[in-house]
Amino acid sequence: MDRITLVNEIFRKKTFLCIGLDPEPGKIPDHLKGYPDPILEFNKQIIDATRDLCVAYKPNLAFYEALGPQGFETFSKTVAYIGKEHFIIADAKRGDIGNTSRLYAKAFFEQLNCDAITIAPYMGEDSVMPFLDFDQKWVIVLALTSNKGSENFQMLPVSVAERPLWEMILQTVKTWGTEQNTMFVIGATHPEAFAKVREVVPDHFLLVPGVGAQGGDLNAICQFGMNKDCGLLVNSSRGIIYASKGNDFAEKAREKALELQTQMAQILLQLNRR
Amino acid sequence: MDRITLVNEIFRKKTFLCIGLDPEPGKIPDHLKGYPDPILEFNKQIIDATRDLCVAYKPNLAFYEALGPQGFETFSKTVAYIGKEHFIIADAKRGDIGNTSRLYAKAFFEQLNCDAITIAPYMGEDSVMPFLDFDQKWVIVLALTSNKGSENFQMLPVSVAERPLWEMILQTVKTWGTEQNTMFVIGATHPEAFAKVREVVPDHFLLVPGVGAQGGDLNAICQFGMNKDCGLLVNSSRGIIYASKGNDFAEKAREKALELQTQMAQILLQLNRR
Repeated sequence: MDRITLVNEIFRKKTFLCIGLDPEPGKIPDHLKGYPDPILEFNKQIIDATRDLCVAYKPNLAFYEALGPQGFETFSKTVAYIGKEHFIIADAKRGDIGNTSRLYAKAFFEQLNCDAITIAPYMGEDSVMPFLDFDQKWVIVLALTSNKGSENFQMLPVSVAERPLWEMILQTVKTWGTEQNTMFVIGATHPEAFAKVREVVPDHFLLVPGVGAQGGDLNAICQFGMNKDCGLLVNSSRGIIYASKGNDFAEKAREKALELQTQMAQILLQLNRR
Repeated sequence: MDRITLVNEIFRKKTFLCIGLDPEPGKIPDHLKGYPDPILEFNKQIIDATRDLCVAYKPNLAFYEALGPQGFETFSKTVAYIGKEHFIIADAKRGDIGNTSRLYAKAFFEQLNCDAITIAPYMGEDSVMPFLDFDQKWVIVLALTSNKGSENFQMLPVSVAERPLWEMILQTVKTWGTEQNTMFVIGATHPEAFAKVREVVPDHFLLVPGVGAQGGDLNAICQFGMNKDCGLLVNSSRGIIYASKGNDFAEKAREKALELQTQMAQILLQLNRR
């Protein structure tokens, strides 16, 4: 999906919600256990209940890999079920040398038909460049993540510029691609960082985890993080997909997604874009 | 596999060679194409030809994931075929938040029976800690990698200590685990770094890629990087497994592995350990 289509979808559907599809076997409602692939069925019902409320889905590969070979099948079928109307982010957090990155790019972009993949920047340009050679495909680079461990290294000040490492990563990686093919992960748990982020990358899209279960505040991040194209994809995973463990799990997931979408619609109105 | 067993195997077999099993479909010899799973057959023949010459095998997950669901099966069967006599490193370069890391740990340690997994440290302690809860299992943290992109971020001086980031990662991560469950990746393409590495982590094992195809020099890294337990696993992938594309690929792989093992045996003699 190209940037124009993504931005149009955001304003048409009045949402910049991304839903994380992170299925844990222990959290799947009991009444789905009879299906040949309970996790696929769980995903399908969540997707059906939330299609109109989000512009993106983000399955985290770890949850599928933990299921063994079957998990890869489930991932692949989930992506196919989502279809072409949504922006699909393979949350894989890969990062490897050049020839290996090229293999990942082929796997996720060509075989699995995902729109974007998340990448860990630690290994540098080899980890990112090979993903930028694909038309209408995106790389989403971890910059300032939402977890506790983000303090360990990402926030270390780097002496050449007296800036934290995560800012150096924005500075450097933005020169490798464009705002048409590169996004950055900035956690909602660091609202104070968004103004600084926008100084460095005013036009890029940001993928923002950490709203909901992790405590990030939607209004705060929008106030400092939005640009004229919205420029945000705000992700919620557990807060939506595990809203209930009963027969009504899909319905409750929709309610939680609708809450967020309603807030987003109001925020988008303020952008006065169209 | 625990540390004592690993060290004993190194001195018993007179080798600290790790062989990277990174099968690319385009490089598999033609005469294997008739097998139901040509890549598994390729791996099996490489393993049979090199078992006595190495202490570790390191399949890089990217090469298996690129094959789709079948690839996961091939990976799993390869690990089973290697068996318990060798140290098996899942070269996955994962790095995610806590609950996700726990899933990866279960998948690679319990379901797939690997001894170790490589981890990217960028997301901090959440990425590493969950892997340290498993008895006789190891985490191998990327510190200074062998690729060109290692210059982008790993070498940035961090102002608190005026040390490069990779050194700060050694400093910090060594406090999370012990030399019984933590190793570090240090690329052979940075021979000048090994003396510094040993100042910070004198007792840890290091996984050293970049000998062979990438140009690293075995003697240089041993001179500065060895400790009394050897403390090195030196990996070669392409230099061994793609030594020939003909019917003799396994025989040629053995020749290349034997060259390295012969050098290693001589170097180990100098340690005068037993």
